[in-house]
Amino acid sequence: MVKMDLEKLFKPKSMAVVGISKRNPLSPGRIVLLKNEFEMNVEVFGIYPTGGDIEGIQLYERLDKLPEIPDLLVIAVGPDDTLGYIQDCADLGIPSSVIISGGFAEVGGKGKKRQQMLEKIAFDNNIAVLGPNCIGVYAPPLVDTIFLPTERITRPPKGSVALISQSGGVLVDQFFNKFKERNIGVSTAVSIGNRAVVDETMLLEYFSKVDKETTNIAFYLEGFKEGRARRFLQLAKESEDTVVTFFGGKTREGKVATQSHTASLAGNYKILSATLRQYQIIQANSERELLSSLKVYDVLSHRKNPFGKNVITYGDVVIVSVSGGHGVIASDMLKNYGLNAVRLERQEKKDLKELMNPAAREIASFNNPIDLTGSVIDTDIEDIVRYLSDVERIECIILLLLPYPPNISFQIGRRIANIVSTKNKPVVCFIPYVPKYALMIESLELAYIPTFHSIKETVQAVSALKHRTRIDNVKKGNLFWDQNPK
Amino acid sequence: MVKMDLEKLFKPKSMAVVGISKRNPLSPGRIVLLKNEFEMNVEVFGIYPTGGDIEGIQLYERLDKLPEIPDLLVIAVGPDDTLGYIQDCADLGIPSSVIISGGFAEVGGKGKKRQQMLEKIAFDNNIAVLGPNCIGVYAPPLVDTIFLPTERITRPPKGSVALISQSGGVLVDQFFNKFKERNIGVSTAVSIGNRAVVDETMLLEYFSKVDKETTNIAFYLEGFKEGRARRFLQLAKESEDTVVTFFGGKTREGKVATQSHTASLAGNYKILSATLRQYQIIQANSERELLSSLKVYDVLSHRKNPFGKNVITYGDVVIVSVSGGHGVIASDMLKNYGLNAVRLERQEKKDLKELMNPAAREIASFNNPIDLTGSVIDTDIEDIVRYLSDVERIECIILLLLPYPPNISFQIGRRIANIVSTKNKPVVCFIPYVPKYALMIESLELAYIPTFHSIKETVQAVSALKHRTRIDNVKKGNLFWDQNPK
Repeated sequence: MVKMDLEKLFKPKSMAVVGISKRNPLSPGRIVLLKNEFEMNVEVFGIYPTGGDIEGIQLYERLDKLPEIPDLLVIAVGPDDTLGYIQDCADLGIPSSVIISGGFAEVGGKGKKRQQMLEKIAFDNNIAVLGPNCIGVYAPPLVDTIFLPTERITRPPKGSVALISQSGGVLVDQFFNKFKERNIGVSTAVSIGNRAVVDETMLLEYFSKVDKETTNIAFYLEGFKEGRARRFLQLAKESEDTVVTFFGGKTREGKVATQSHTASLAGNYKILSATLRQYQIIQANSERELLSSLKVYDVLSHRKNPFGKNVITYGDVVIVSVSGGHGVIASDMLKNYGLNAVRLERQEKKDLKELMNPAAREIASFNNPIDLTGSVIDTDIEDIVRYLSDVERIECIILLLLPYPPNISFQIGRRIANIVSTKNKPVVCFIPYVPKYALMIESLELAYIPTFHSIKETVQAVSALKHRTRIDNVKKGNLFWDQNPK
Repeated sequence: MVKMDLEKLFKPKSMAVVGISKRNPLSPGRIVLLKNEFEMNVEVFGIYPTGGDIEGIQLYERLDKLPEIPDLLVIAVGPDDTLGYIQDCADLGIPSSVIISGGFAEVGGKGKKRQQMLEKIAFDNNIAVLGPNCIGVYAPPLVDTIFLPTERITRPPKGSVALISQSGGVLVDQFFNKFKERNIGVSTAVSIGNRAVVDETMLLEYFSKVDKETTNIAFYLEGFKEGRARRFLQLAKESEDTVVTFFGGKTREGKVATQSHTASLAGNYKILSATLRQYQIIQANSERELLSSLKVYDVLSHRKNPFGKNVITYGDVVIVSVSGGHGVIASDMLKNYGLNAVRLERQEKKDLKELMNPAAREIASFNNPIDLTGSVIDTDIEDIVRYLSDVERIECIILLLLPYPPNISFQIGRRIANIVSTKNKPVVCFIPYVPKYALMIESLELAYIPTFHSIKETVQAVSALKHRTRIDNVKKGNLFWDQNPK
């Protein structure tokens, strides 16, 4: 196996860009040059055949005229010229490259041949080539090769998740927007495009073994690269990081689509699914499930993990709501996600009732789901969450916290956060992401208590915590877990 | 059957409120009084035993001291006093009432008896009582009995959907927020609580037959009121409006929850589901599906319905995307939602390629899903949507419109809107709801072209259009449709 230096790709000290247009301010090369110069920390050089400058940035005539050999070359020229530049990388000793242009294997015929030539140069010379037909790397605060103007897209916050996508569009749109909305942190985002050289398996190895910032590795794939699935699975099983996959192209219709997209195929998803499970890879069945999982895994990666050593093993939960209907909707989902509503004992119900303010006491309901009603006040929620935190057989509290009851104050988030930080009982919250509730949401999120926008995502997140317990146990060699999955 | 005047409940000229606290500014009665005085168009009177005033509003000592008999009485006192006020309605001839307080059938025992007494007075005197244990009515611009401060909640826009919920919390939280986010218009929203008197069946009849503003009737129910299901189903079948239901309490866990909530039970959901189908009621399987359906139905209710007489009969669609991955994800969902990807002919693909700008032509893919790539420009999308609009066997274009490609301008929404308004081919769009894309989204929505925040909702919406075609056909007596469901 060739040893390519992926660190140069993701943590370059300097980079060069070829394919800059002086006339078209929206040309990909020019966008990449400017955004790295103005927004990122990497030292960036622009190449232009006649030199000169652009927006005050000096341009160099050729790669060999640069003041130093860059760690990374971003190539934003047509497919034929691309090959010449990859040869330059070999000749000059540039260790990594991102190829933006399409026109390779994905178009068939001549393109396929082009890609073979590209592969030969790259593998012969150990050049870590990303792409072709990709948007490359977003590795804050250093480098960003996404050729879309930054103000048009949304950047996710910094965090523990390495995000690897076979589709650049899905990376930037489906993930970046939604990571930002949900406050899920990204360490590095990678668009692998045709993955001619650097593929998902090399990236899994790098993020597992080399990159210290990453503790969760998420993949959007439409199939494994041919001949590489076995190694991927093995690496995932050995990894101390949590590996999560979401597959596109699962259906016949979706497969037809992938053939024209990145020349790959998901294969029989049922078999794939069983295999992933066997290798301790967490599978998301929908994009939302992927996001819900990653959000809680990102939270658990924080040094101040609010749940301490408490894990969800059996999926035994209690639902606390201020609206009966919300409790019903959440309860309807439990079974489907491998969770169970803990049965509260008579004495516990009596205790809970005692804790409520007198006005709400008579109309509240203390079955599970617990419905505190719209007459709830802050201290009711506080006292009840504290009480339930001490009930050992409850593994997690699902708190459906509507900000509408008139006597709920904007302190409620902080009050709950304080209890969770003390008791370390897993609490997962639902509060709609409406700008005016930001204060409540932030007071929870600042204490790393995961807060979701929908009831479904809240339940999915708790389920994801249970899955992770199982996988952590299996990886530690606890065979009971391997034999009692789900 | 008693004939109650529901119009007085939803379109009162004047209303009175009892249960106002002079000390507690957050008491439900006081909130209802003030929000109707300051925010709504109804004439509102407050009752307070010793008179006086509150925030400059004169208070009357008793109901019989009011300058006129109000159309509606909002009762925000404890359960025992509530009965006295309902008797006052009977004595004074007040035709409708909203009872906010709980403490009736839902608490069992004494509460059950209370509710029986309430029912007797109401039915004997034809008083349209909503509740008890409800938040009542939101019927803009006239009346709003929701006892939560308006600034705490979100109000949906005005439109064609009557929204009836067995849970006040679900109404205000799950629906209002999400209706607003998705720009779905509400004619009247009703929380039925214990539905002691006015129930879902009476409301279905009222909104179907009396209320002219409503053309879509949506229900969140945890079960039908005992003995009323048959009439509900019959009314739904006869209704010219579209009837959509979403049921909570479908699972054993959810059922346990409903027992403590509004003393009802969904029964066997499988049987229920088949029955609903038989009576031409559209069923949403999730809350998102309900929302996606209502959004397109609301759009179709506009006088300027952009799709004209074009309907989706077979579910034959084409997907147009600027990201391959998005096309794959959408394609994966088609079959599950009863939709088919139309196969494009060789000549059509050639034509489409010709329409593209030269830079993108070679890398774009013209299978279905069509991937225009990030090199797309406005006129490509415009020309291709126009071309596809003329292909007769395509019933609908699913347009996955990412605003990231550098050469897509903020005019793109308007450009597409113009084509749809001319061609009337159904087009359903995906654009993420990020504030900076508002200009693009609004230019589509102003032309009533439905735009969604997720790929899934976009696909669900197209599926909902197909369901509606089937139901409209069956209701018109076209038996073919009844025998070829799905």
